[in-house]
Amino acid sequence: MNELIVWTYDWVPEGPRGFVRDLRLRWACEEAGFAYSVRTVPFDGRETNHLSRQPFGQVPFLSDGALDIFESGAGLLHLARKSEKLMPRDPVGEAQTLQWTIAALNSIEMVTVPWWFLEISGEDDNRLAGWMGNRLAQLEKVLNEREWLAADRFTVADLLMADVLRISRVRAFGDRPASESYVTRVTDRSAFKKARADQLAHFAAADAVRA
Amino acid sequence: MNELIVWTYDWVPEGPRGFVRDLRLRWACEEAGFAYSVRTVPFDGRETNHLSRQPFGQVPFLSDGALDIFESGAGLLHLARKSEKLMPRDPVGEAQTLQWTIAALNSIEMVTVPWWFLEISGEDDNRLAGWMGNRLAQLEKVLNEREWLAADRFTVADLLMADVLRISRVRAFGDRPASESYVTRVTDRSAFKKARADQLAHFAAADAVRA
Repeated sequence: MNELIVWTYDWVPEGPRGFVRDLRLRWACEEAGFAYSVRTVPFDGRETNHLSRQPFGQVPFLSDGALDIFESGAGLLHLARKSEKLMPRDPVGEAQTLQWTIAALNSIEMVTVPWWFLEISGEDDNRLAGWMGNRLAQLEKVLNEREWLAADRFTVADLLMADVLRISRVRAFGDRPASESYVTRVTDRSAFKKARADQLAHFAAADAVRA
Repeated sequence: MNELIVWTYDWVPEGPRGFVRDLRLRWACEEAGFAYSVRTVPFDGRETNHLSRQPFGQVPFLSDGALDIFESGAGLLHLARKSEKLMPRDPVGEAQTLQWTIAALNSIEMVTVPWWFLEISGEDDNRLAGWMGNRLAQLEKVLNEREWLAADRFTVADLLMADVLRISRVRAFGDRPASESYVTRVTDRSAFKKARADQLAHFAAADAVRA
């Protein structure tokens, strides 16, 4: 197998630590049992210093031998094709995993991230709140009926959906108990804990160099 | 090959005609030369009448024999796996197509759709305008340097990105000439024109039944 490299920033402020999306790729590698290393691009000047590798100036991106791939969702689907632990190999299981992976990106995160963006912009009357409430209520219905999104087992779709719900800090879980217990169940996995601890240690180590 | 069925609404008002996302799946089938049929769920009561097949009450979804798949992005990637006309078969070409398909959904549409949502809500000072401007400027740089997003050829990533730019009605193309000519180039394809004409005819025919 080719060498896998997860690319992230060399450092980030306290706020986003534990949430930077390289965690998704680390987590997937841990679930699959893939060996991987982590390399960095500078946080300072990120808007322009790695556009040739990530045209929106973001992280993460993944190297798989000579192949580079950006967008955490694309990296996850790429890794999922390599391991049955991330995605079933039967056509129906694969289709279910694919649809829920895209739903996490385009039906949930497409609402939660802009909602969050307005929240931190100090919007008094967040006009995305109603739309987000509808989507999360629909997801709650789904999660009320099953433990995992696809194929009756953990897949990369759960990894991504749980991370989307966790990252957007949609913390009003009180009236969405199924979603809350879902996020708890998925992030209780040892692969998540390892990935998160590794990310926190990576950025903490950078503080010393930067100081 | 299994029977392919593109599911959409039986009717929609004038406004969204030509933009409903079943067009993406029709277009992909036309590009690939796949035979397909179109079936419908009722527009009235759409919020709840097909949740078992699309848990957010939306269209389209795709049937491929016994397999159902929702999310237009997932349907496109599913179809792309079946035809080299939509996605190259070499690993690098496939990874590039995947990353740009996800970028269309999660880096561009994640900004343009909420921006549009605020626009039609009558937001005076659309706080997503700056973020969207940045993303579209970054995309303009990419499109200024190449004709197609992935693998130096038309792929399903172009189909989706052009549709995202077209649908969101980001019509201030004057200062983004590369993006404008890209959308024109991609939507000038006969497969797009056929798909769009078929969608318009489908909804027009429903007017007579509904009247």
